[in-house]
Amino acid sequence: MWSLVEEDGAETALARVLRGDVPDKALRAAAIAKAANLDPRRLAELTLRRAERLGARIVVPSDDEWPDRVGALATLTLEGSQRINHDVRPPLCFWVRGDWPLGETLERSVAVVGARAASSYGIHATTEIAYGLAEQNWTVVSGGAFGIDAAAHRAALAAGGRTVAVLACGVDRPYPMGNTAMFEQIAETGLLISEWPPGSEPYKHRFLIRNRVIAAATAGTVLVEAAARSGAIQTMGRVLALGRPAMVVPGPITSAMSVGCHELLRSRPDATLVTGLADVLEAVGRVGEYQAAVPRGPEHRRDTLDEESALILESVPRRGVITPEDLAARAGLSLRLVLRRLSLLELTGLIERRGTGVALARRRR
Amino acid sequence: MWSLVEEDGAETALARVLRGDVPDKALRAAAIAKAANLDPRRLAELTLRRAERLGARIVVPSDDEWPDRVGALATLTLEGSQRINHDVRPPLCFWVRGDWPLGETLERSVAVVGARAASSYGIHATTEIAYGLAEQNWTVVSGGAFGIDAAAHRAALAAGGRTVAVLACGVDRPYPMGNTAMFEQIAETGLLISEWPPGSEPYKHRFLIRNRVIAAATAGTVLVEAAARSGAIQTMGRVLALGRPAMVVPGPITSAMSVGCHELLRSRPDATLVTGLADVLEAVGRVGEYQAAVPRGPEHRRDTLDEESALILESVPRRGVITPEDLAARAGLSLRLVLRRLSLLELTGLIERRGTGVALARRRR
Repeated sequence: MWSLVEEDGAETALARVLRGDVPDKALRAAAIAKAANLDPRRLAELTLRRAERLGARIVVPSDDEWPDRVGALATLTLEGSQRINHDVRPPLCFWVRGDWPLGETLERSVAVVGARAASSYGIHATTEIAYGLAEQNWTVVSGGAFGIDAAAHRAALAAGGRTVAVLACGVDRPYPMGNTAMFEQIAETGLLISEWPPGSEPYKHRFLIRNRVIAAATAGTVLVEAAARSGAIQTMGRVLALGRPAMVVPGPITSAMSVGCHELLRSRPDATLVTGLADVLEAVGRVGEYQAAVPRGPEHRRDTLDEESALILESVPRRGVITPEDLAARAGLSLRLVLRRLSLLELTGLIERRGTGVALARRRR
Repeated sequence: MWSLVEEDGAETALARVLRGDVPDKALRAAAIAKAANLDPRRLAELTLRRAERLGARIVVPSDDEWPDRVGALATLTLEGSQRINHDVRPPLCFWVRGDWPLGETLERSVAVVGARAASSYGIHATTEIAYGLAEQNWTVVSGGAFGIDAAAHRAALAAGGRTVAVLACGVDRPYPMGNTAMFEQIAETGLLISEWPPGSEPYKHRFLIRNRVIAAATAGTVLVEAAARSGAIQTMGRVLALGRPAMVVPGPITSAMSVGCHELLRSRPDATLVTGLADVLEAVGRVGEYQAAVPRGPEHRRDTLDEESALILESVPRRGVITPEDLAARAGLSLRLVLRRLSLLELTGLIERRGTGVALARRRR
């Protein structure tokens, strides 16, 4: 359908489908079966009225607020998949609840996804990252599931930021029901969106189809926890196929909820291990905008010493003063070499001169 | 010294150094300073006698039991280092305590290294991996420090396997003292080795020099826990420079003892994340000897369904039977397509025929 609409525009495409004038046999059969129940133009009218009643709008590619990034799905190729043209092309439209313009909201966005059966460790990591993203004025994007998805939305809401829930059902019947209060809050301060019209059921296969939107609409995706072969892993496959930053939070090797994360890091060299907000911002920020600080231990001055300097430093007594001559004998080095190295060690602040000898610098102790 | 001995042999090299006939000024000065205290030939004699008294032997490159793998250090180049020729060339000899032939013991060996201030998680991961390696007839190699090093040795000993402690001091004065009982056990059932003669002090700079031996003598090195910029990270730099498998165990991003591990995985794409024994064996085993099983979730049959089949499957009621005609209407697909897909779904065992209709297969519920 997406290819037909691209080719002829929506109206002509609909007319062609209704009169059976399409080459794809499966599409032709499905259209005939669906049209047998209700006239599609009438169905569209009813759906639009239903959307209006619940305060939802439809956004199509020609609208100003269309999120351009999902256009990357037009050329997405998934390795080893037979379903390329069935479930990876861009959506034809989005049904939207919430006041923010869709495109602008997603322009600076990061997806945070993961397991439903998340551990407290996963919830903690998600909260830290999503809260920080929202604080830094990034929109958080996720599905609506329990576990990591809900923790990501809640953290963004708690930070007073924007969050977008991408649903696999109609925006009038968010699934799962247990998150209803959260969905209402998202509709008020963020966006609830879906490519399926109001009233649509959360069929299982729709979650996988929906995942491509999470991957394509955002600047990058963070996977926090995932069991082996979970749906979130498939989302990451789409992120990688789109060439977007695929960020993975590691965890204990003893946790079943990190097995999928570790497997992804092992099998996909283009996936990036992230340990927190700084690493995420580094991956999605414009070059130079963020730069994660390299962790440094307290002893790096000593680590950079050459062998002789290290030997001389080790030969200085812990307390008291030693002459360069005694130091040379202790270290088994020539006096000349010791004197030269002592100047450097003094410059680095590791030793200090006292009278005719040297001692360890006071602040080292 | 190593280059001189390579060139002229040990005896001629010693004679040249003693008469100052070497181009390297620092070496000349150090030799003169050292020889001023005691005649080197006399020192060697005393040291050999001392070794004999404590049941240690010296192993040199011309011996049958010399571990050939350390020869790779002859051409090791460390990026950005000013110390290349000072601390990375092969050892001139090993002082050895223990009955096993050195080379044979190290032939099938894996190093397991990490933080002194290890967490219980790190100790657990180390124990699992080192115990498993020993059970699979691999020699475990490590330093002698508290924390990960000691846990690796203890696990190998507990499994009744062989373990080698590579020391940064003489084999007669293992450091730290707190591990004395463990060192005695290693000397009895494994090997204590050092490139420094008996009586040598555990100077700090020697640990970094020693680490190259751990990297070079083994088939690969596993890093379990490491703070930022720890010594174990430098060992891994040598492992990577030698092109050996550099295996890193991830941990919680909330743990300071995993910061170094994660930083290494982020900065070095040639480092490998490992989650347990199977991954380690896969990395060091000969091709095909081991192959880590890819973790699989329980639902992979459903995950591989095409979109229409998934839709049809979702449209089958949880209980009871449905006719293909009703199924087609429910799924909004043509009857012909539904019939074709039903045959496939039946083959996969997900649905079964009952009378004129179909139902979910009983074992799925």
